Amino acid sequence: MKLGDIASQFQLELSGDAEVNITGIASLSEADASQLAFLFNSNFRDQLQDSNAAAVVLRPADIELAKIPCLLSENPRMAWAQIATLFDPAPLTMPFIDESAWIADTAKIGRGVAIGAKAVIKSGAVIGDGAQIGPGCHVGEGASVGAGTCLNANVVLYHAVHIGERGIVHAGSVIGADGFGFEFDASTGDYVKIPQVYSVRIGDDVEIGAGVTIDRGALNDTIIGDQCKLDNQIQIGHGTRIGHHTVISGCTAIAGSTKIGSYCLIGGAVGIVDNIEIADQVEITAMSLVSQSILERGRYSSGTGLMQGFEWKRSVVGFKKLDDILKRLRRLERE
Amino acid sequence: MKLGDIASQFQLELSGDAEVNITGIASLSEADASQLAFLFNSNFRDQLQDSNAAAVVLRPADIELAKIPCLLSENPRMAWAQIATLFDPAPLTMPFIDESAWIADTAKIGRGVAIGAKAVIKSGAVIGDGAQIGPGCHVGEGASVGAGTCLNANVVLYHAVHIGERGIVHAGSVIGADGFGFEFDASTGDYVKIPQVYSVRIGDDVEIGAGVTIDRGALNDTIIGDQCKLDNQIQIGHGTRIGHHTVISGCTAIAGSTKIGSYCLIGGAVGIVDNIEIADQVEITAMSLVSQSILERGRYSSGTGLMQGFEWKRSVVGFKKLDDILKRLRRLERE
Amino acid sequence: MKLGDIASQFQLELSGDAEVNITGIASLSEADASQLAFLFNSNFRDQLQDSNAAAVVLRPADIELAKIPCLLSENPRMAWAQIATLFDPAPLTMPFIDESAWIADTAKIGRGVAIGAKAVIKSGAVIGDGAQIGPGCHVGEGASVGAGTCLNANVVLYHAVHIGERGIVHAGSVIGADGFGFEFDASTGDYVKIPQVYSVRIGDDVEIGAGVTIDRGALNDTIIGDQCKLDNQIQIGHGTRIGHHTVISGCTAIAGSTKIGSYCLIGGAVGIVDNIEIADQVEITAMSLVSQSILERGRYSSGTGLMQGFEWKRSVVGFKKLDDILKRLRRLERE
Repeated sequence: MKLGDIASQFQLELSGDAEVNITGIASLSEADASQLAFLFNSNFRDQLQDSNAAAVVLRPADIELAKIPCLLSENPRMAWAQIATLFDPAPLTMPFIDESAWIADTAKIGRGVAIGAKAVIKSGAVIGDGAQIGPGCHVGEGASVGAGTCLNANVVLYHAVHIGERGIVHAGSVIGADGFGFEFDASTGDYVKIPQVYSVRIGDDVEIGAGVTIDRGALNDTIIGDQCKLDNQIQIGHGTRIGHHTVISGCTAIAGSTKIGSYCLIGGAVGIVDNIEIADQVEITAMSLVSQSILERGRYSSGTGLMQGFEWKRSVVGFKKLDDILKRLRRLERE
Repeated sequence: MKLGDIASQFQLELSGDAEVNITGIASLSEADASQLAFLFNSNFRDQLQDSNAAAVVLRPADIELAKIPCLLSENPRMAWAQIATLFDPAPLTMPFIDESAWIADTAKIGRGVAIGAKAVIKSGAVIGDGAQIGPGCHVGEGASVGAGTCLNANVVLYHAVHIGERGIVHAGSVIGADGFGFEFDASTGDYVKIPQVYSVRIGDDVEIGAGVTIDRGALNDTIIGDQCKLDNQIQIGHGTRIGHHTVISGCTAIAGSTKIGSYCLIGGAVGIVDNIEIADQVEITAMSLVSQSILERGRYSSGTGLMQGFEWKRSVVGFKKLDDILKRLRRLERE
Repeated sequence: MKLGDIASQFQLELSGDAEVNITGIASLSEADASQLAFLFNSNFRDQLQDSNAAAVVLRPADIELAKIPCLLSENPRMAWAQIATLFDPAPLTMPFIDESAWIADTAKIGRGVAIGAKAVIKSGAVIGDGAQIGPGCHVGEGASVGAGTCLNANVVLYHAVHIGERGIVHAGSVIGADGFGFEFDASTGDYVKIPQVYSVRIGDDVEIGAGVTIDRGALNDTIIGDQCKLDNQIQIGHGTRIGHHTVISGCTAIAGSTKIGSYCLIGGAVGIVDNIEIADQVEITAMSLVSQSILERGRYSSGTGLMQGFEWKRSVVGFKKLDDILKRLRRLERE
């Protein structure tokens, strides 16, 4: 592919030789002489100086930094998202229903649907036009998958789960398992299961990573809004509702019946307890514990910061004495 | 269904019109005029005032709060667990062995067993009467599943794993993978694998969530006691033993060879290190790290609490100086 | 098996009766009179005194502690790794391709390969000699599995993923799902997906636990070096690179584009943020958050230590006042 072709396809201004051959994209530090790289911001100017890349995408303001052909974009990350589609080796999935798939008679399969080998589609399930159900997937009774949505291999949807259009669910995720609800029966000394009679509803344009679990609700549906993006190994408890355009990084655990707003950015390995509310546009940094509602937008954190082991142990001793420290400080101030 | 029928079926006292039609259950704030809601305690009285519910289950002591028909229960949560069974849309699984399942000749299949499409049952496995093996499940060589136990889709039991009766395992969980054990061989500079020659034994009436991993033991079986309830994405290391009636919330990680008592309540995203002991009736709050044995019942926590990002950074600075703070305080006190 | 046979097979010095029958291995506290136990170090001498074991493996220096037949080893844990292989009940997998497996015509299958029931091998995939592909596995287009590597049940490899030789991947792990990358498009108010056009390359002799997710890269391959050992439910973000011989315990989350050195020991439930570097031989204790690069070897931690709930709440109050504490301390010192 010629650099000039890329420029014209994405309406990017070209500076330099339009005839340069581009065979792929790579990071500045690893690109070879046939690859296109990206200067996301000028902090990485040193990497650009040392780069072997054939060409670079950068901001017009940074053009002086480059000695190689450039494509100019006010948002090099957006240009990256667009240009990368040209070099994506992901295989196309043909609209083809593998004969080893198990499909109930009462399932409704749209036009142009792909269903992979060994997939199981139960009675009353509805697969929208152009959807892709990967090998080994399980679509439960009455579940529905919106048009153009792709389930990768071995995804499990329980009965009555709904996923909207143009979504992606990565391999091994489980949507609609029973929420975690038991009541202790003092008369028998045992736990009694609370039936989880509601389901999960997921909006349009939602991407869900691998190994994610989203439980069905007990008193209301668990809801994930449009355009939410969930990374791998996230856990969403029963009855939790997440607004639209909220982005959650990997391994975050959200307990049940919590309401999370729209346009939130939730870091990785965060814990959020049950039955609280989080406002719109809240940012939570990695590995924080949210144990109370957050009613105002802003950035929130918990934790201590990392330390060398020996010094950390001393700080932990101090942490345990903090109440004592406050008392002694007050006494000194009084004296 | 008439409200009066529900009252008589579960022996709940009725106050109001027995003829009210009930089509389902819902939360107070979302119930419509055909649904039954629950007032779990009087803190939610405002929700009851504003509710459109057809009727409500509440404590006799709270009956004055309701202007709609009521069912009276000293434990509305237990009434909920019972009444919800009437409205559970989960499809019944028929005792039927799908012809696409792969079942070894030497596997023993009990009476009234359901085995889903594409399931694999290996040699010597034993499936108890009335058990349900979901589509895509894998039951390893010599593994046994107790009577009435249900494995949902794509569950993997490795060889020789035992699960008791009336259990539930949700989709994608893996029981009996090798414990994590290696010994560094200084002579080669490489790690040598320690064979994990024991297995996993799970008691009766245990529920295991989706995406859970429970490893097999190296010097003893990994054991989960009767009536334990495990939420999604929990990790249990090799050789760990958990007493009976212990409840563990999602994403908690328990390392190997640890002993946990009975009737414990372990919050979500908790970390518990290896080779320690936790007494009976210990409660651990969400996202705590347990790095030492807990020998007395009680409630335990770690962590800092959540703060606004800017203030949090200052507290982290202080945390790192805690040893210094203690020294300076002591000096001032001496002066 | 005779104790003397074990001694000669592993060239361990025997002290006591060579004719003792050994039917298995067990911990000191649980071994019965036909089992061999291990004294890993003299701290467990009390367990040895009370043990019913038939014989014990211990250090020559500890021989005085034993009243039962002994095998002597300078490294009893290494002897354990070796001897345990004699008693491993894991079933042998025969080099046999199940007829219910789905294998693309263009896949290349080596000699002596086992492919389990319902496995799916896509076009262009390469399975090395003696490799084992478990039931329900999915090997994507052009993915390659090295000689002698074993994928347990329901493992998913996406397209173009490469795993080296003699590896083990436990059930339900997903390798090569899309990395988590989106760019917010202010013009539409929506997120745009960044194609993840690179893949995952895993070295030789790597063990990967159950429920692990390793994402494919966007600008470079995600790389796991030779002899790395990953426990269950670990998450590795896109483009992250891990050196050789690094050991990571369960439930640890590593974000994208981070470089981790060789011979690191990373505890369980650790969080490591994106785009940082961790040097060789760094040790990180359980549940720490690594939010900055670690450039020197050593042991690192974060967190507060566990406390009783009531005292912990007071320390949290103090933590939030730490900036204030420092200011008041400074004022007192000035006075």
